[in-house]
Amino acid sequence: MSSAVADLERVVKEIAEEMRQRTDRGEPASYIPELANVDTGSFGLVVIDNDGTVAAGGDADMPFSIQSISKVFTLTLALGKAGDRLWKHVGREPSGSAFNSIVQLEYEHGIPRNPFINAGAIAVTDRILSGHQPKEALGEILRFVQFLADDSSIAIDRTVAESERRTGFRNIALANYMKSFGVIENPVDYTLGVYFHHCSIVMNCRQLAMAGRYLAHSGRNPATGHRVVTPERARRINAVMLTCGHYDGSGEFAYRVGLPGKSGVGGGILAIAPGKASIAVWSPGLDAYGNSHLGRIALELLTKRLGWSIFGA
Amino acid sequence: MSSAVADLERVVKEIAEEMRQRTDRGEPASYIPELANVDTGSFGLVVIDNDGTVAAGGDADMPFSIQSISKVFTLTLALGKAGDRLWKHVGREPSGSAFNSIVQLEYEHGIPRNPFINAGAIAVTDRILSGHQPKEALGEILRFVQFLADDSSIAIDRTVAESERRTGFRNIALANYMKSFGVIENPVDYTLGVYFHHCSIVMNCRQLAMAGRYLAHSGRNPATGHRVVTPERARRINAVMLTCGHYDGSGEFAYRVGLPGKSGVGGGILAIAPGKASIAVWSPGLDAYGNSHLGRIALELLTKRLGWSIFGA
Amino acid sequence: MSSAVADLERVVKEIAEEMRQRTDRGEPASYIPELANVDTGSFGLVVIDNDGTVAAGGDADMPFSIQSISKVFTLTLALGKAGDRLWKHVGREPSGSAFNSIVQLEYEHGIPRNPFINAGAIAVTDRILSGHQPKEALGEILRFVQFLADDSSIAIDRTVAESERRTGFRNIALANYMKSFGVIENPVDYTLGVYFHHCSIVMNCRQLAMAGRYLAHSGRNPATGHRVVTPERARRINAVMLTCGHYDGSGEFAYRVGLPGKSGVGGGILAIAPGKASIAVWSPGLDAYGNSHLGRIALELLTKRLGWSIFGA
Amino acid sequence: MSSAVADLERVVKEIAEEMRQRTDRGEPASYIPELANVDTGSFGLVVIDNDGTVAAGGDADMPFSIQSISKVFTLTLALGKAGDRLWKHVGREPSGSAFNSIVQLEYEHGIPRNPFINAGAIAVTDRILSGHQPKEALGEILRFVQFLADDSSIAIDRTVAESERRTGFRNIALANYMKSFGVIENPVDYTLGVYFHHCSIVMNCRQLAMAGRYLAHSGRNPATGHRVVTPERARRINAVMLTCGHYDGSGEFAYRVGLPGKSGVGGGILAIAPGKASIAVWSPGLDAYGNSHLGRIALELLTKRLGWSIFGA
Repeated sequence: MSSAVADLERVVKEIAEEMRQRTDRGEPASYIPELANVDTGSFGLVVIDNDGTVAAGGDADMPFSIQSISKVFTLTLALGKAGDRLWKHVGREPSGSAFNSIVQLEYEHGIPRNPFINAGAIAVTDRILSGHQPKEALGEILRFVQFLADDSSIAIDRTVAESERRTGFRNIALANYMKSFGVIENPVDYTLGVYFHHCSIVMNCRQLAMAGRYLAHSGRNPATGHRVVTPERARRINAVMLTCGHYDGSGEFAYRVGLPGKSGVGGGILAIAPGKASIAVWSPGLDAYGNSHLGRIALELLTKRLGWSIFGA
Repeated sequence: MSSAVADLERVVKEIAEEMRQRTDRGEPASYIPELANVDTGSFGLVVIDNDGTVAAGGDADMPFSIQSISKVFTLTLALGKAGDRLWKHVGREPSGSAFNSIVQLEYEHGIPRNPFINAGAIAVTDRILSGHQPKEALGEILRFVQFLADDSSIAIDRTVAESERRTGFRNIALANYMKSFGVIENPVDYTLGVYFHHCSIVMNCRQLAMAGRYLAHSGRNPATGHRVVTPERARRINAVMLTCGHYDGSGEFAYRVGLPGKSGVGGGILAIAPGKASIAVWSPGLDAYGNSHLGRIALELLTKRLGWSIFGA
Repeated sequence: MSSAVADLERVVKEIAEEMRQRTDRGEPASYIPELANVDTGSFGLVVIDNDGTVAAGGDADMPFSIQSISKVFTLTLALGKAGDRLWKHVGREPSGSAFNSIVQLEYEHGIPRNPFINAGAIAVTDRILSGHQPKEALGEILRFVQFLADDSSIAIDRTVAESERRTGFRNIALANYMKSFGVIENPVDYTLGVYFHHCSIVMNCRQLAMAGRYLAHSGRNPATGHRVVTPERARRINAVMLTCGHYDGSGEFAYRVGLPGKSGVGGGILAIAPGKASIAVWSPGLDAYGNSHLGRIALELLTKRLGWSIFGA
Repeated sequence: MSSAVADLERVVKEIAEEMRQRTDRGEPASYIPELANVDTGSFGLVVIDNDGTVAAGGDADMPFSIQSISKVFTLTLALGKAGDRLWKHVGREPSGSAFNSIVQLEYEHGIPRNPFINAGAIAVTDRILSGHQPKEALGEILRFVQFLADDSSIAIDRTVAESERRTGFRNIALANYMKSFGVIENPVDYTLGVYFHHCSIVMNCRQLAMAGRYLAHSGRNPATGHRVVTPERARRINAVMLTCGHYDGSGEFAYRVGLPGKSGVGGGILAIAPGKASIAVWSPGLDAYGNSHLGRIALELLTKRLGWSIFGA
């Protein structure tokens, strides 16, 4: 075992232990009933470097709802299908407002600012659906995530999806609003059905870090050598993650962590150290921006201790 | 001469030549009379790597008004004086709106979103001024820039500064608006006087790339070894440049170029390849966001050809 | 026949004739397919004074979709049921924005500004529904309008209602958005179903002017003597019509016409000359604010010739 | 003495007495130091009917700063000078936001919504100034108010004006912002100087009610028979007062009082009962919208007891 690998494993274990002991744990998402009851005591961290070393700490194998992290995978899939035409339906600028704001949509004629706010991810989902049946589109997304993680056991929690469908009034509002501008082309129920379901994919940190390897490795799965996207596309997805991946806390995440990342209200974060590693962290208590409180702190410590910030040593 | 240095010099020359030949050159800033008459035929590019190699192409020695690029230096200076207390007066999130928008200020009680929109830079200038006479504060800023570039000949174009003072009604509005919330503490005329003057600093690409070296080199001037800021602060300034450095085109710049950067309406851009190089480019024609049109294209080509994107190879 | 009555009848005939001859007729509402094909050549005007004199001109008996004019009747009905508690669900200030804007809702936590913008009328409809079945609530609204007009033949055009239900994405967005704040209490589909149907009530100018008499006559039907609302409530409904009845053209309508009024995108306007007359006008071509182009002009001429402006002789 | 006159005098005395006894008195304007120290115990009410009867109650002769009420007189003057061309510089729609909001200006390219919000009144003042020296323009405004009130003793409190000039950062921001769009044509300092001074005119209720007679009497001074404006213009000014005269509380004022009116943060309100009377009320404690708390209540009682609402008996 090389000393770099030993260092990595030690740092991951240390951070998991430090996070276990902290008493400031944030609050779980309250607006999705199924997520509100999660125990904020959990914390998991997995780092997979580009040699395939897996360093795991804490609740690395405990499953959670990936929620908005799925937007990274749907963006990748939609770019594969639509190419740069996708950008006619969604922008790639930070939004300067909350994840579910509708104001920006009115001022910009129904075009959402980026693929990582809810409106943008719904528009991206609509591009994947693109005339197919919801079931087929959802199957395609799930199989893509299974392929990325090399794990066919990954599944959707339909109870969470149904719960969001029943209570997700703001997302229903966003989708209908975009529909009124013609930005959504499929029936709103279809698009939202697929959206709510892909947000309800369940993974653990190990699976999530596996799934993110292509972004850390120039678009290739380093284990199999399979090309998922071109190197340029991998860089560009990372760039959108950096500028837009944490809603109105994206600047803060870049400032403190210094890695492209995407969070979900389930408490997970996928972070990418380009050329170095794919990282998944999970702790269900959230901060004021809706991002995992301990997850963000753990990533800040990790990049500092390993010198992995993309902004300099 | 190493082959890496040879490559760098070749790439810089090539790009300068390609830019010279392009017919799409953008439009110069129209709202500052002194800048409106600049010849859009100019293009300069200088890259200084961390070994001190200087690769120059095009109009590398032609002076231009650095305008908003000065905000990087005033942010650095203000952080040195106020430390993290600075962030009580200004945020560090992308704004999601134009460089001179006043809407965000009303919704956020006079606190500007980040130090690189005009309102934010005015608030930062107010922190540097902080009870001193405008002349002293301005002298301090100018000496700091001269120190960073190791060139005491750098000066201010007072004609441009006076022109902005006479016609900069929107900046006057922004400053008074913040004053009404108590965010600006000095007399508005003092703060704006210093602001308009530091925006009117004149540099050429060579000087500008020299001045940016500390950000590419963990906070140190690699030539002298002098520490300007801590490594962490250098990383964080780079992070703010990446997320906020190009107004409402910051996402686009990250997506296409993949480097922290700060543009000015004079047509200059300072870009940082952390651990690798400090880069200055200048071409006065602007794109729709107010950023140098050819400058951005040149940087996109440079990062692609040299594999310097912070988002992966 | 008194000379005042003769004057009234002459003025109404004259205006109808002048409107018939005008070539500037506005454009019909485009977003409801069933309304888009209406002939803009039509024009009708009926004035009923408080002595019961009916002066009619033009297409006074041609039926049209009253659309948003129904909001006056639902506001009256909801105030009767909920009293001043209604104002917890909707404000009574002009909105300063378009009839279907969603921006204001976000800044004001889901409470619509007034009962005459779409969001406000949907919230009012929700108060009428209030736990009942949609069919019952709709029946109550229709019977109330029939009672006001003293005409049981008034009906709903279900084709128009269905068309709006299928294509009214922005109203669906507004309703779900308010639901996300808890402002809408019934199932969104129920509330919108009732809303789309009461907007699809069909009346002619004669029926509409009859229905408005209580607002011109201190809350009483002057023919039957039946009290519909208290005098104070009639005044207050008139006040809301004056300040909010024409969306973002309300100031313009007050400035030019000087009467409380409520327009619908079907081209109808109900206007009230308090103490004097109830007035209905209809012409399907709309102006830029979505109000009847010739309807507004006809009312301006009418108030000027009869000296009926509430703002002075 | 006719019984109507006796009634009027009795009602005015009663209301003044009721207001004297109330303990809820609102808070004085805090942002203008000279106004912050006013005693909220004061209350004055004067009604002048169209026969010239003057009914006075309370502190009818105590002088106060008319502040924004001056906007009625400057609007009248500017319409006299510029006619309908004035409406290119200012709209006449309710604003849907606070009196000093700058947001609307950004979305509407620097054109203020109406002449009674601060931005609009500054734009109107700029039209009166129109190339003249501030001193001349201010003299013209003051003489016009003296002429309307038939009282050459009316003067400006220069201490208040100077205080506003020193501390009115938000108005300075609004003016410079409009200047950046070219809506303000004179030097900003000139326009603001005139604006701050005409807001600082000092009157008592008796003078103010006298000055408003032309609006209640079809544009004529009923005492002298002099025409101030045409009947149509008087109606239109009343209409703008009704829809826009109380900032974001205009709907509320119309709903409760039912008269055109214009308030000032000095605690005064000028209200017009068209064809009946000119009314001035003053009490320095303000409500949440910045309108006189007891002034509004007194007017509500007055219109109810006298049956003067323009919206019906």
